[in-house]
Amino acid sequence: MIENPYYTHEFHGDYDLIGLGEFALEEGGVVPDLQLAVATFGELNEAKDNAILVSTWYSGTHQIWRDVYIGPDHALNPEKYFIVVVNQIGDGLSTSPHNASGANASIGMSRFPRVRIGDDVRAQEQLLREHFGIESLALVVGGSMGAQQTYEWMVRFPDKVRRAAPIAGTAQITPHDELYVTALCDAITSDPGFKDGEYSSNADVVDGLKRHAGIWAVVGFSTEWWKQELWRGLGFGSKEEFLTGFLEPYFTAMDPNDLLCMAWKWQHGDVARHAGGDLAAALDRTEAVTRIIPIDEDMFFPVRDHESELELTPHATIRVVEDPAGHLGLFGITPTYIGQVDQYLQELLDTEA
Amino acid sequence: MIENPYYTHEFHGDYDLIGLGEFALEEGGVVPDLQLAVATFGELNEAKDNAILVSTWYSGTHQIWRDVYIGPDHALNPEKYFIVVVNQIGDGLSTSPHNASGANASIGMSRFPRVRIGDDVRAQEQLLREHFGIESLALVVGGSMGAQQTYEWMVRFPDKVRRAAPIAGTAQITPHDELYVTALCDAITSDPGFKDGEYSSNADVVDGLKRHAGIWAVVGFSTEWWKQELWRGLGFGSKEEFLTGFLEPYFTAMDPNDLLCMAWKWQHGDVARHAGGDLAAALDRTEAVTRIIPIDEDMFFPVRDHESELELTPHATIRVVEDPAGHLGLFGITPTYIGQVDQYLQELLDTEA
Repeated sequence: MIENPYYTHEFHGDYDLIGLGEFALEEGGVVPDLQLAVATFGELNEAKDNAILVSTWYSGTHQIWRDVYIGPDHALNPEKYFIVVVNQIGDGLSTSPHNASGANASIGMSRFPRVRIGDDVRAQEQLLREHFGIESLALVVGGSMGAQQTYEWMVRFPDKVRRAAPIAGTAQITPHDELYVTALCDAITSDPGFKDGEYSSNADVVDGLKRHAGIWAVVGFSTEWWKQELWRGLGFGSKEEFLTGFLEPYFTAMDPNDLLCMAWKWQHGDVARHAGGDLAAALDRTEAVTRIIPIDEDMFFPVRDHESELELTPHATIRVVEDPAGHLGLFGITPTYIGQVDQYLQELLDTEA
Repeated sequence: MIENPYYTHEFHGDYDLIGLGEFALEEGGVVPDLQLAVATFGELNEAKDNAILVSTWYSGTHQIWRDVYIGPDHALNPEKYFIVVVNQIGDGLSTSPHNASGANASIGMSRFPRVRIGDDVRAQEQLLREHFGIESLALVVGGSMGAQQTYEWMVRFPDKVRRAAPIAGTAQITPHDELYVTALCDAITSDPGFKDGEYSSNADVVDGLKRHAGIWAVVGFSTEWWKQELWRGLGFGSKEEFLTGFLEPYFTAMDPNDLLCMAWKWQHGDVARHAGGDLAAALDRTEAVTRIIPIDEDMFFPVRDHESELELTPHATIRVVEDPAGHLGLFGITPTYIGQVDQYLQELLDTEA
C-alpha cells in the first residue's frame, strides 16, 4: 500500500466505495474484497429504467465525466437520468495495486492479479443489480477503454443494454494498439526505480512516467494538435510548457502499477473471446441500439477501425466527432468537442429502444 | 572508438571513404578530419551534367538505395546517370561518434559535436565539387532525413539543383516530429547501460535500443500495416517474429551515439534558418523543378505537412505514394512501392530543367 494524494476525495470529489466482497477474476486470480469507487448523478426512478452506466478510460476516473460530460446542459442529464460512473478496477480509486490493503493486503503492488475488461463488466453488473436493483440500462457509454467495456456489456449482457455508445474505442484490440500499449508499459517498467513493481513511491518512477507521458504526446494527440498549437487554447505559452505543465504532471501523479494493471486490460480487450475468437459472431449477439463514435484525428483508434466493427454490429450507426486533438480530445479540451458528443448521445437517447 | 561489425564492407558492400579534412560545423564544433562514406553508380559524363545526389535517412545508409532504388530498371539508372550516394555524417559509415579515431579521437563517443543538416549539405557540395568536379546536379533526392537534406540543397544552393525530389520528409521540422524524436532518444538515453554515451559496446544499450525499435513499430508503420498483417509479405509468421526478427535486430545492431547524432539533426532540420525563420521566404529561393513525394499512410510526415510546404515551393508539384506500410514504406517492403516512386522520379527526370 502506497499513500498517493492523487487518489483522494480532495482531488476527485465525491464518490462512494461499494464493496462486492470476494471477486474471482477471469485470469484465475481473486480479489478478496473488491471495492468499486462509484459516483452517481441524478435519481433512479421507480421503474428503475432511467439508469445510465459510464465506464472509465486508461488513467481516467469519474472526475472527467463529471466535469465535461454530465450536467443539466448535456445529454447525460442528471435531471432525467440516474447516471452511475464506475471507476475501473486498477484505476487507483477502485481496488488497485497501490491501494490494496487490509483484506486485500495479499494482492498489493506487484502481486496484484491480472484483471480483464470482462471482470470490470461483471463487477459493474453485480453492483448495479445488487446495490441499486438495476436490471436494464437506458445507455452504456464510455470512451477508449470505456468503449471496450461498453462492447463487453453489449456482448455479455445483451438483454440488459438498451442503448450503447462506444466512443473512440474498439470491441477488439488492434495489433497497433497492442504495440502502442507495450511501448507505454516499457517506458515505465524500464525505470530502475520501478523495481519490478516494488517501488516505495510513484516519485521513484518519475522518469519512466515522464517518458510514458512523452509517448502519449506523440500518439495521443494528432499531428495537427501540435502544428496548429492548439494547446494555446488551454492557456499554455509553448508546447514545452504544455508538456511540463499538463501532460507530465497528469501522469507522474499516478501510480505505475495501477497504470500497468489498466494497460494489460486494454491490451487484452476482445469480445471475440465470447465466441471462440469469432468477432463477427460475438458482435452479432448485441441487441443495443448503438452509436459508434470515433474521433476523426485519432491516431491509434482510427475511424476505419470503428468502421470495420460497425459492419459487424447489428443495430449500430456511426457518428464521427471532428476534433484535431485526436484521441485525447476525450478530455473535452477542444471547445467544439462536447457539443458533438452531446448531439450524438442525445440522438441515441431519443431513439426508442 | 567502438568496433561494430555492422558498419563494415561486409554488411554494406562497396563504398569509399573520401576525406574532406578539417570541417567546421554550424553549431561551432569542428571535425578534425571529416570522412564521407560514398557509394557511386554509373559514370559521370564529360559535360558533368548527369549527376544525381542521393542523401540518406535516419539509420539508413547507401545500402537501401543500392538494393531498392538504383539499377537499370529504375528511374535512378546508372546506365544514364552518375549516382552519388553520400552517407550522412553520424550514420556509422561516414565520420560518426562510434568510429571517431585517429585524427578524430578527440570527438569520439559522447564528445561528438552537434551536426546539422546544413553541415551534411555543405560537406556534400564540397565533395562533389572538389572530388568529382560537379557543379550542377540533374537531381537531388532523398527520403525522410534525406528529404530534409534535399530541401537544404534547394534553398542553400538553388543554382546547383536542377531537379529535386524530397520523399516523405519536410523542409521544416514539425512539432509532432520533434516530440517523436524526443521519445526515440529518451528510450536510448534512459538505458542505464548508455552511461551518458560512454558505453563500451552497443550491446550494453540493447534494452534501450529495443524500446526505441518498439516506438518505431507504433509510429513508423501505419495501423493498417499491422491490421492487415502485411509483415507476412516479408516471410514472418507473427508480428512478434517480425519485431524480433526484423525491427529489433535492425536497430540493436546500430550504435546509440550515432543514432542520437542523427536524431538531433533530424529534430533541428529547418530551412527557414536561412531566412530569419521565414519558411516561405526560404522556400521561395528554390529554383529546382521539384516533385514532393509523401506516402499516404505516413503517421509522422503526413501528406498534409507536405501540402503546406508545396504551396510555398515555387516549382513544385506533389505525387502521393500509396503504401499501407506508412513511413517505413521507404524500405521498399511493399511490392507496389518502388514502382510508384520510379514513375514519379522518371516523370521528373524527363522534365526539362
